[in-house]
Amino acid sequence: MKKIKVGILGATGMVGQRFVQLLEGHPWFEVSELAASEQSAGKTYEEAVAGRWKISADIPEYARKMRVKECRPNLDCRLVFSALDAAVAGPVEEEFAKAGYVVSSNSRNHRMDADVPLLIPEVNADHLGLVKVQQKQRGWKGFIVTNPNCSTIHMVLALKPLMDRFGLEKVMVTTMQALSGAGYPGVASLDILDNVYPYIGMEEEKMQTETLKLLGQFSGSGVANAINPLKSLKPPSSPQHPIVVRTEPDRPQPKLDRNLEKGMASVVGRIRKCPVLDYKFVVLGHNTIRGAAGAAILNAELMKARGLIG
Amino acid sequence: MKKIKVGILGATGMVGQRFVQLLEGHPWFEVSELAASEQSAGKTYEEAVAGRWKISADIPEYARKMRVKECRPNLDCRLVFSALDAAVAGPVEEEFAKAGYVVSSNSRNHRMDADVPLLIPEVNADHLGLVKVQQKQRGWKGFIVTNPNCSTIHMVLALKPLMDRFGLEKVMVTTMQALSGAGYPGVASLDILDNVYPYIGMEEEKMQTETLKLLGQFSGSGVANAINPLKSLKPPSSPQHPIVVRTEPDRPQPKLDRNLEKGMASVVGRIRKCPVLDYKFVVLGHNTIRGAAGAAILNAELMKARGLIG
Amino acid sequence: MKKIKVGILGATGMVGQRFVQLLEGHPWFEVSELAASEQSAGKTYEEAVAGRWKISADIPEYARKMRVKECRPNLDCRLVFSALDAAVAGPVEEEFAKAGYVVSSNSRNHRMDADVPLLIPEVNADHLGLVKVQQKQRGWKGFIVTNPNCSTIHMVLALKPLMDRFGLEKVMVTTMQALSGAGYPGVASLDILDNVYPYIGMEEEKMQTETLKLLGQFSGSGVANAINPLKSLKPPSSPQHPIVVRTEPDRPQPKLDRNLEKGMASVVGRIRKCPVLDYKFVVLGHNTIRGAAGAAILNAELMKARGLIG
Amino acid sequence: MKKIKVGILGATGMVGQRFVQLLEGHPWFEVSELAASEQSAGKTYEEAVAGRWKISADIPEYARKMRVKECRPNLDCRLVFSALDAAVAGPVEEEFAKAGYVVSSNSRNHRMDADVPLLIPEVNADHLGLVKVQQKQRGWKGFIVTNPNCSTIHMVLALKPLMDRFGLEKVMVTTMQALSGAGYPGVASLDILDNVYPYIGMEEEKMQTETLKLLGQFSGSGVANAINPLKSLKPPSSPQHPIVVRTEPDRPQPKLDRNLEKGMASVVGRIRKCPVLDYKFVVLGHNTIRGAAGAAILNAELMKARGLIG
Repeated sequence: MKKIKVGILGATGMVGQRFVQLLEGHPWFEVSELAASEQSAGKTYEEAVAGRWKISADIPEYARKMRVKECRPNLDCRLVFSALDAAVAGPVEEEFAKAGYVVSSNSRNHRMDADVPLLIPEVNADHLGLVKVQQKQRGWKGFIVTNPNCSTIHMVLALKPLMDRFGLEKVMVTTMQALSGAGYPGVASLDILDNVYPYIGMEEEKMQTETLKLLGQFSGSGVANAINPLKSLKPPSSPQHPIVVRTEPDRPQPKLDRNLEKGMASVVGRIRKCPVLDYKFVVLGHNTIRGAAGAAILNAELMKARGLIG
Repeated sequence: MKKIKVGILGATGMVGQRFVQLLEGHPWFEVSELAASEQSAGKTYEEAVAGRWKISADIPEYARKMRVKECRPNLDCRLVFSALDAAVAGPVEEEFAKAGYVVSSNSRNHRMDADVPLLIPEVNADHLGLVKVQQKQRGWKGFIVTNPNCSTIHMVLALKPLMDRFGLEKVMVTTMQALSGAGYPGVASLDILDNVYPYIGMEEEKMQTETLKLLGQFSGSGVANAINPLKSLKPPSSPQHPIVVRTEPDRPQPKLDRNLEKGMASVVGRIRKCPVLDYKFVVLGHNTIRGAAGAAILNAELMKARGLIG
Repeated sequence: MKKIKVGILGATGMVGQRFVQLLEGHPWFEVSELAASEQSAGKTYEEAVAGRWKISADIPEYARKMRVKECRPNLDCRLVFSALDAAVAGPVEEEFAKAGYVVSSNSRNHRMDADVPLLIPEVNADHLGLVKVQQKQRGWKGFIVTNPNCSTIHMVLALKPLMDRFGLEKVMVTTMQALSGAGYPGVASLDILDNVYPYIGMEEEKMQTETLKLLGQFSGSGVANAINPLKSLKPPSSPQHPIVVRTEPDRPQPKLDRNLEKGMASVVGRIRKCPVLDYKFVVLGHNTIRGAAGAAILNAELMKARGLIG
Repeated sequence: MKKIKVGILGATGMVGQRFVQLLEGHPWFEVSELAASEQSAGKTYEEAVAGRWKISADIPEYARKMRVKECRPNLDCRLVFSALDAAVAGPVEEEFAKAGYVVSSNSRNHRMDADVPLLIPEVNADHLGLVKVQQKQRGWKGFIVTNPNCSTIHMVLALKPLMDRFGLEKVMVTTMQALSGAGYPGVASLDILDNVYPYIGMEEEKMQTETLKLLGQFSGSGVANAINPLKSLKPPSSPQHPIVVRTEPDRPQPKLDRNLEKGMASVVGRIRKCPVLDYKFVVLGHNTIRGAAGAAILNAELMKARGLIG
């Protein structure tokens, strides 16, 4: 199989770096373009991330000498992964989709658009049917598909099988979030060491609205919905066990469990009866892999498997 | 007023050290005895805590040269504060109460005994009526009064006025706990750095049972219940505002708020509507002051004010 | 004694906040002016530091409603403490000194000027003689006095008595620095958690040059040099023991020792023979109190005691 | 090549776990025995480390069901890796060597024995000549080889080429150590969070004496010393670049650099002139891989390559 050329928008930021790392040696995709802001454009990727590379593995060889471009829809690729900041992602992603690119976005801007799939392959692969609706309504050759907020992804992965089997009426959730979720420089060390920071702007709203969209029914006709889509299609980033259940009382722990299934699993533990609602449990997941870049890559793999990418 | 002589049981541990610190210069109490395990007995306090003093203020002068004794009911004092480990607190506290001492205990052993007050002065001062019941049933000259678990104290302080005003049907709570709650050496650094530890044995059970006892009605006759007991009596450790409400979206924060009212307040913030239950909010409090040693001292002050100590 | 009116330049930053806190209830000085950048000017101090107050004690009452002004030499005070960022401190401090203000600066800009005292009262009080030289050379009515970098202060406090008694030939030092030294937002949490950051720009150079200036002889004639200046004059912020020596093998520790003498002491420990140089030891000190705001306040107190202020 | 059967002594501790992990799929060695204290003996490895497995990767499959044995010289293997606690390592390792086993030890007990090689393959491979001396003097069929303390290894790896090229007169070193160096439970979180702990017992002494032994000349005749022993023999754990030099001013950083060369490299940076000694620089290395278990494995590989193991 000839590899599909892909680009990364916002390639120099925290999530962009994760895309660069996770796409190294990818069996279906080949990174042909790295794009970022004007300040980075023209530099090699190595120069552009000097002093800002935050992943505990060196910059992949393939990316070091690549020349960073601006985020304009003249890139030599078929699909772009968007790790753009929410301040600019909205119109840029639209330009790319209009110009015919497939956009797999981690940004929040289009997640709640009625005709844009907000996608977790194991949860609502059938929502890809919205792609045709989107293209028709907007008159685009390409299209945008998004993945949810990192907290939402792991919560919904754990809730979906419960909903399917028992139904779901009410959910209460308290999140404890990794610092990497705020990007770089993100949270100041003086704000978090010896401290708990009790508020992340718009996070509660995102978890509420995105969850309802994810768990909603797609009533239109579009791509057929396979019973077990991932198992038959085997996208390379698909975890063997999307949900890992630990029975030890002191698990899951981030230090020990976040990298299970290469960071693509949701790890559930401490399942017990709840005197208020019916059951309570803990879910843990990697926030920049399954919760961000890995999610968008898996979405792209699903689209490829479904024949949505050229 | 002549000061009341008090002793500290378990004076060398984390909570014991807090008692030693908080009782320095106390207007009503004078520490006349420090007691601990056999290994410490016979040493000066300074020697006994060498390399184990964990409070960011030097050992108070008054305690340095005091000779540590064993935890036997032959101490020269009228009241003992118990910071004993749960493994030994049960029978030791009983011996002291039997021998006529007032025992203000931070240990969990007798908290749920039906005739032992589990006390938060602002919440259920009338439960002190149980003291007479206890003395009668057990044939003791002294008695035991306990304070709740650190998490329970702060939660119940925040819930009580809501219960009084609106009633209380269901409560869901997620706790994030200070490392000091586990004592010393307590949690290994390898277990907590870059990690979240999801389980503390018996903590959920304690929060459930202690809360029900605290918020229960004392139906017997005993000490009369003043409307606003603390305000009229002014125990020296009583905070001016037991509950401080912060309206900034990013408060309370441990680093900024735990020492409000000298660590004796519960700090409430982020009050907002909840789509599942009616309201949700954050409560923060100091776990070794209001949540442990300070709670037991305030309890003792209330007992003194009510005429229960000599 | 009537209090001297003082202002704080850069009052909203990390070091500025320390000035605001440490000057609350000061027996000699009264904060009459708070000044900061254009964005803050016009707001109350409370508004100006909303979400940026980083000290674990609430904003002092006296400062909350004060109106923040711009850093122009029309402030109603006799002395200004400068906590200005190095990017702007240079010319602003000069303007104030020219206009007749005494400037006690924590900024690095004028530290190495030949006619500006770089002052640690216990080390080189006689360098205040430079004030007359400075005023004459520059034709100023006011003058600038500076305190050293936080690392230098504590190192030199420990070295001075050794130099006086034994002489000093070579010094090797490795520093481990508090995150607060970088101001706010300063170091990103992603850069420091689970990490050691090996480089602070210009820090080595500052420690080398400032130390030589501090330990140099002032050969001019000026203010007479008392043998034990601080003891006889008793500036209120002067620590009873500027150097505290700990003999326990595991001290000093920041958590246990940084607040000794209200954060104004240098704590020395682990003194032992060195097979390469003659002796080695550990010095620990509070970096935003004795290492910054407290240092500038002590300098101002010394100037007042010497009759250099009004 | 048929794999050599190896055992791990002290297999349940922190360093023991690293041996278990690093030896998974090793091309030359096959773990046939896991041994630990009496409490663990008889349990499966999985049971024995329940709640104590501290490595962020699950227990390797091969080890889970292995039955843990006591540390007695009746194990079915040719070589044992010793991760024993210093309190017991001395006599146990001697028993094994006497009984004919090759012992590659990470424990400190025999490091300074005159006839026991203290070995870093890239530094003093010729010291293996001591094996014959040891066997002759002690009348043993087997023998003991040790690796240095974690701090010493990385320091000496960086110093050796400098010594060879320029000579070495004096070295001053300040270490900042990973918490894992103290084993588990090791350092209490209350002792290290928001703190610097200034003392590790015997650490300075170890770095001084071990370094002198490592950099000393072996004058006897024994195994011939190849010029570039590792390059020609290619032990599988040998890093391609034992020393990685970083030229960025803010490197090395543990978070970014400790896993270079799979944790087997020493990473050098910030090389600069020193006004006291001639040069100064920073060295960083992984303390439980190259600094402990990985070091002992590399030593064993060198012994195999030199024909010292069956």
